[in-house]
Amino acid sequence: MGPGSIRIYEVSPRDGLQNEACVVPTASKAALIARLVDAGCNDVEVTSFVRSGWIPQLADAAQLVAMLPRREGVRYWGLVPNTVGIERLIQSGLSHAATFMSASETHNLKNLNRTIRESLAGLDEVITCAKAANLGVRSYISTVFGCPYEGPVAPDATLRIAERLLAAGADEIVLGDTVGLGDPRQVERIVEVLTGAGIGLSKLSVHFHDTRGTALANALTAWNCGITTFDGSVAGLGGCPYAPGASGNAATEDLVHLFGAMGVDTGVNLEKLCEAGGYAAEILGRELPGRVHLAWRGAQARASARKVS
Amino acid sequence: MGPGSIRIYEVSPRDGLQNEACVVPTASKAALIARLVDAGCNDVEVTSFVRSGWIPQLADAAQLVAMLPRREGVRYWGLVPNTVGIERLIQSGLSHAATFMSASETHNLKNLNRTIRESLAGLDEVITCAKAANLGVRSYISTVFGCPYEGPVAPDATLRIAERLLAAGADEIVLGDTVGLGDPRQVERIVEVLTGAGIGLSKLSVHFHDTRGTALANALTAWNCGITTFDGSVAGLGGCPYAPGASGNAATEDLVHLFGAMGVDTGVNLEKLCEAGGYAAEILGRELPGRVHLAWRGAQARASARKVS
Repeated sequence: MGPGSIRIYEVSPRDGLQNEACVVPTASKAALIARLVDAGCNDVEVTSFVRSGWIPQLADAAQLVAMLPRREGVRYWGLVPNTVGIERLIQSGLSHAATFMSASETHNLKNLNRTIRESLAGLDEVITCAKAANLGVRSYISTVFGCPYEGPVAPDATLRIAERLLAAGADEIVLGDTVGLGDPRQVERIVEVLTGAGIGLSKLSVHFHDTRGTALANALTAWNCGITTFDGSVAGLGGCPYAPGASGNAATEDLVHLFGAMGVDTGVNLEKLCEAGGYAAEILGRELPGRVHLAWRGAQARASARKVS
Repeated sequence: MGPGSIRIYEVSPRDGLQNEACVVPTASKAALIARLVDAGCNDVEVTSFVRSGWIPQLADAAQLVAMLPRREGVRYWGLVPNTVGIERLIQSGLSHAATFMSASETHNLKNLNRTIRESLAGLDEVITCAKAANLGVRSYISTVFGCPYEGPVAPDATLRIAERLLAAGADEIVLGDTVGLGDPRQVERIVEVLTGAGIGLSKLSVHFHDTRGTALANALTAWNCGITTFDGSVAGLGGCPYAPGASGNAATEDLVHLFGAMGVDTGVNLEKLCEAGGYAAEILGRELPGRVHLAWRGAQARASARKVS
């Protein structure tokens, strides 16, 4: 048995939307975030402060932040690639920043056009700058559970990066299963390697992908290891663009349902979260892959059919 | 850590197809089963011997059995509601039968038009008759993890039924999560109650549904408890008919991928299984919900796109 309460970190407005072809109006994004917050999501990654024009979907970062509902206990996060991003994030009024890099050299090179060594040097500066401004900082490490180019990734590679990022001042490390290759045994092993080296469980978060259906099995395993922060994307938003119905991010509703059913306090109201997921599907005008989301939509459809007949 | 090897029980030809609106030609069913067997599925539930006309999809039971490839070590199973079904199953040449009833009174009444007491009396006769003919027998108990009408179901209700069915001669009991309401804590509790009463782990199989994304988390938990037989349906065939993309049965590929990634011997070749799933989608002419299936289809589509360009 794992911890009695967990923390959900919602990634849909950033990680989910950045893969969408159609640019969602800023007001719709703000409305989605308001619904997520109403449902009890206290950590929401709202946007990214990458170079303007890099990701058109997220070019409205500053406008979006200005529209967010201010609520006691709610933390809004922005993704930052460098110190310029940190400056923009601070100017927008956000107080929490997320950094990113990969555990595997090839993925880091292809994705960020830098070696791991260069990324670490850059993030050292970014995190130092963020902490000097008193920001909360989480640092994603991608491909921890496998790299699409290199295959298996040694837990030690993740450990070395995690230690550097924590030494730079990061508050938490996010273990990312970027392509959904992780399995429960691997989750146990990586958590063991990291905690065995003295990294506290409270400093570790997990970001699983459901590409091969393993997200909840991995989340359950991480929870059994004592992990308390789980990344999710409402309705599974941010799926793989290659196949209709294919899945990327773990769906937040699926996580909240699983842990809720086990009596674990998630702080999130599942019904309201499902409504937020329904709204996400509506603004995108397409089917989203989350299992609980689809079950909920099915139940909604049957309820309206009964009303009509 | 659970057992080093597991057994996959494939339900798609019966449990999967029976929910399909279009009647699949017998030759296509036989071809699907041949592919499943080629992939290494040694237990396949091929059809149901219910009253002719009850389920048009399965009215070709005898013809289908005649077309099945005979292969050393492969067991074909037929679902039977009563002793007439047993007679028809034996006449067809099958040697393995599956019976069914529910753990909750209301589901049993609505589904079978009998009380649990009446079902038990009937199955006593069915199993006796099957064992007299030297058939292998597995007995499904539905709604073990929750009933759509009654909600939670006490583990003791399942225990009492399991004991009666085993006493009648059933070789194995299948714990069915009929509407996908089960969670890992419940899985542990039910296995504990059953084994605590002296039922051996080798006599218990699990049949999970992925309606709310919990199938693999529940399967992992059952495996950690020592369970070795897992029901799956290729590509997740047998989804809920209510919502497009919604899921019913645990997808066999997802189970085989999960356990395979953990180093557990499943006896199934995942690539060949994916091809069988692709064939299932082809004969049904619709999108199927299995996660690994969709990831595999995505990879196939990208591979052909590369060939064309």
